[in-house]
Amino acid sequence: MARTDYYDDPDAPVPNSIVPAAVGCVTDGEGRILLEHRVDNDLWALPGGTHDFGESIVETVVREVKEETGLDVEVTGLVGLYTDPRHIIAYTDGEVRQQFTLSFRCRVLGGELQKDSESLELRWVARDELDGLRIHPSMRKRIDHFFENRAEPYLG
Amino acid sequence: MARTDYYDDPDAPVPNSIVPAAVGCVTDGEGRILLEHRVDNDLWALPGGTHDFGESIVETVVREVKEETGLDVEVTGLVGLYTDPRHIIAYTDGEVRQQFTLSFRCRVLGGELQKDSESLELRWVARDELDGLRIHPSMRKRIDHFFENRAEPYLG
Repeated sequence: MARTDYYDDPDAPVPNSIVPAAVGCVTDGEGRILLEHRVDNDLWALPGGTHDFGESIVETVVREVKEETGLDVEVTGLVGLYTDPRHIIAYTDGEVRQQFTLSFRCRVLGGELQKDSESLELRWVARDELDGLRIHPSMRKRIDHFFENRAEPYLG
Repeated sequence: MARTDYYDDPDAPVPNSIVPAAVGCVTDGEGRILLEHRVDNDLWALPGGTHDFGESIVETVVREVKEETGLDVEVTGLVGLYTDPRHIIAYTDGEVRQQFTLSFRCRVLGGELQKDSESLELRWVARDELDGLRIHPSMRKRIDHFFENRAEPYLG
């Protein structure tokens, strides 16, 4: 299902849902972060997805990273809260979400890198390679916060 | 509307909603925390409520604390995430929520202490007075985490 992200855009549609979601900042041993080239909007993004019944939000990010990247990870910290009401995501089925995303720092425990149908490609990306990839500003902000290695989580 | 909290209870109803909420840990200058004696379940609790369209989650807690206590506060940090799927809240209108609550440390900027219709009483409570109040275990956990003054937010 295609998605369109709006940020601080007067033409954004009015939201009709808020669904908690989680993304994972997964790193290799060399300071690179794992990004996926998404099918739904042709942009590069952190792996992640929406919170389900029966799981905690930490379990959400562990499950989504496994599904989308093949890697088993554990959460080592919270990078930030991203709940800016000016960020709206419209889906083709009529759902219009106001973003509510938590971003977690993750460490790889095992598994084999393997993409699923939601992405065209997975890639380990160094900080100085970010400018060469098409990344939505709201996603780039989360990635930048990860690389900034903040002492306290971002509360946005 | 009356609510019933279930924690790790095999008789809890099956959840049909997840709604982000925020509570505030508001302190005076003497290390006490502000609690309200709730009308809906006759228990003592942190002030707070559910996230609305058009606001960030930090704006939610500032608004809810103002509505329920009369105080103007600012958020100074995140105490923790509380998303344990074993905590279920059933309302009399049929909604059954799986908890999704963020707890924030708050500093008083101004305002006058004044309760609203959701509570019977507001009280500044010292840590050693907590055992004398009826507090749900899931709420007590959040209050204890605040007093523990953790370096990193609790990720539950």
